[in-house]
Amino acid sequence: MAAERFTRGWEKLMEVDGEGGQRVIESLQDIAPDLGRYVVEFAFGDIYSREGLDLKQRQLVTIASLTTQGGCEPQLTVHINAALNVGLTANEIIEAITHCIPYTGFPRALNAVFTAKRVFEERNVMPTKAPE
Amino acid sequence: MAAERFTRGWEKLMEVDGEGGQRVIESLQDIAPDLGRYVVEFAFGDIYSREGLDLKQRQLVTIASLTTQGGCEPQLTVHINAALNVGLTANEIIEAITHCIPYTGFPRALNAVFTAKRVFEERNVMPTKAPE
Amino acid sequence: MAAERFTRGWEKLMEVDGEGGQRVIESLQDIAPDLGRYVVEFAFGDIYSREGLDLKQRQLVTIASLTTQGGCEPQLTVHINAALNVGLTANEIIEAITHCIPYTGFPRALNAVFTAKRVFEERNVMPTKAPE
Amino acid sequence: MAAERFTRGWEKLMEVDGEGGQRVIESLQDIAPDLGRYVVEFAFGDIYSREGLDLKQRQLVTIASLTTQGGCEPQLTVHINAALNVGLTANEIIEAITHCIPYTGFPRALNAVFTAKRVFEERNVMPTKAPE
Amino acid sequence: MAAERFTRGWEKLMEVDGEGGQRVIESLQDIAPDLGRYVVEFAFGDIYSREGLDLKQRQLVTIASLTTQGGCEPQLTVHINAALNVGLTANEIIEAITHCIPYTGFPRALNAVFTAKRVFEERNVMPTKAPE
Amino acid sequence: MAAERFTRGWEKLMEVDGEGGQRVIESLQDIAPDLGRYVVEFAFGDIYSREGLDLKQRQLVTIASLTTQGGCEPQLTVHINAALNVGLTANEIIEAITHCIPYTGFPRALNAVFTAKRVFEERNVMPTKAPE
Repeated sequence: MAAERFTRGWEKLMEVDGEGGQRVIESLQDIAPDLGRYVVEFAFGDIYSREGLDLKQRQLVTIASLTTQGGCEPQLTVHINAALNVGLTANEIIEAITHCIPYTGFPRALNAVFTAKRVFEERNVMPTKAPE
Repeated sequence: MAAERFTRGWEKLMEVDGEGGQRVIESLQDIAPDLGRYVVEFAFGDIYSREGLDLKQRQLVTIASLTTQGGCEPQLTVHINAALNVGLTANEIIEAITHCIPYTGFPRALNAVFTAKRVFEERNVMPTKAPE
Repeated sequence: MAAERFTRGWEKLMEVDGEGGQRVIESLQDIAPDLGRYVVEFAFGDIYSREGLDLKQRQLVTIASLTTQGGCEPQLTVHINAALNVGLTANEIIEAITHCIPYTGFPRALNAVFTAKRVFEERNVMPTKAPE
Repeated sequence: MAAERFTRGWEKLMEVDGEGGQRVIESLQDIAPDLGRYVVEFAFGDIYSREGLDLKQRQLVTIASLTTQGGCEPQLTVHINAALNVGLTANEIIEAITHCIPYTGFPRALNAVFTAKRVFEERNVMPTKAPE
Repeated sequence: MAAERFTRGWEKLMEVDGEGGQRVIESLQDIAPDLGRYVVEFAFGDIYSREGLDLKQRQLVTIASLTTQGGCEPQLTVHINAALNVGLTANEIIEAITHCIPYTGFPRALNAVFTAKRVFEERNVMPTKAPE
Repeated sequence: MAAERFTRGWEKLMEVDGEGGQRVIESLQDIAPDLGRYVVEFAFGDIYSREGLDLKQRQLVTIASLTTQGGCEPQLTVHINAALNVGLTANEIIEAITHCIPYTGFPRALNAVFTAKRVFEERNVMPTKAPE
């Protein structure tokens, strides 16, 4: 059943994070393989596999949490890609980061937006300018 | 137009936070009235009034941000009430907090859940137990 | 095997946190029972049950992490009790908090020390004054 | 010379924090006396005794640091008193907290302002309302 | 009046941050232009334009807040430049960072000092060594 | 006696951090020499020189504190080297970081583990894979 959690988590990780997530797990193999296993089993096999919020809602929560925490630019890169993977638009991602400003201030929001900019440029999905 | 931002913000604050938000603004009147004005004008007149995310999505982002930041129990109390006001269920609120565990750890999630428990008890809206 | 992880975790939780940990899990039953289950299965069944560091070393790490994180006084209360349960002395606990000062500053260390003071008084185990 | 640092620190602590600081040091006597000694010797004997910024400037820096850090309400209470002791006005203290909003968000600023409110009420020094 | 706030904010941004601030706003144009607009309107048009503290005092508060928050090196770079622009000396900037040590620990202070070092070297304004 | 604290601190710094620590102090000479002096006198002369915890225990506490604080990768680099210097194994260091996951979440643990990986590769001391 441990294997079941791992399998369920791995499939969820592939669905959500895709290649970016796989690379993180692989880069842990020679240094802290169990940490990678916990990401798969616990973060994805347990938490992401829960009902109650869909994957778009989960990525909004993830982006807000990582933006607020600060110093998590590598994880934000993975999860802004993930947000696009599960169907959030570039505009919605920027909107979620913008919504964090009153709670966590401009610097953390700026760091997250510039991280998003790099991801969007790589995937060629810049946000459309909102009509005014 | 400053008045317009304030009016728009005040209406949004009433819609989202209701009485809990009003009390915060009023309690600032004799100590830092401009801070209250900025909450209304900027946080609600500018940010919450934006398009691109609906109010349920915004409250998911808010709860994730406040849970992760830590030490924001008074603000979490206001915004867990707000989440219920805009139509999120108790289950969805608990789910959003639970989703933050892999990113911010158990202590911040526990503090947020116990804050939610106090709000839910006061409003008599405890989450239903998920079928297993 | 899920049951196995839970059982292993519950036994470890009882060994380490004792009653204080049990109370946390129970107080989650009507609000977020899965959060309690994850504390048991993941934090204690997976992490605390690992080899490589003994329980005294794990509690030194836990106290340093909670002291540094800030705003985790309820969790510090549980884990200062746990530190005593697994054999750390009051002096060693104060020493670990003191060691965090250069890394996290005086305020977080002061908050942790006053939390320890309440636990020590309740258990009647104040630190002995070091000879000078 | 250790004694010299302690004496210089103690005099500075008395000048800046007054009774509130003395109470902190005394409350550490039976639990972590060395932590109190380091507050006196290092924070006040070394840092506060430096030239280069006057005490008003130092209290602006202190209030900004404690507001931003979060979860430091007991220390903010001591240092808002200290800010008044060294000649900052209630208005300047509120202004410093307000200035932190863009950097750290509203929740931390609100927590600091309500802490200031309690100190000001106790000392009967509420800020005057700025002319508009 | 929205235009008025933007104009007032832009002038203040130019006075305080100069080119560094302009570059941040411009780099947001294709990704999150409203975030740039809020920096101008709210951070500079509202907050920095307030009376009650002069610009040197405001930069002391800003540097303390960014140093303490951590992970804000890009913003510290802009605001250490800004601090020099409004008349603080290199010595006073180092002094403000040094004063944060007791509150936030050595690592955050070291990160801020090395950020300052890069700014000072670029502007050729290293601090003079204080006489001992 | 100031000289005595400095000497004691310097010897301890050499014993614990070795070259990495020396480089930090030297790189502060032209920008903030007193900050370097405080690291030596206070962090090493006062805190690290205390009895009550041995150097291995102190490095476990240091690594937990720096991992949890976040944004301290340069200091983690120094102190993961230091942990090896005082006799902790690569496995124990990874174990301490892994133990922080439930308290501070995966992102901070991942950042710390990848920092450790760079140190271990440079020193050719990768952790052995635990038998399963």
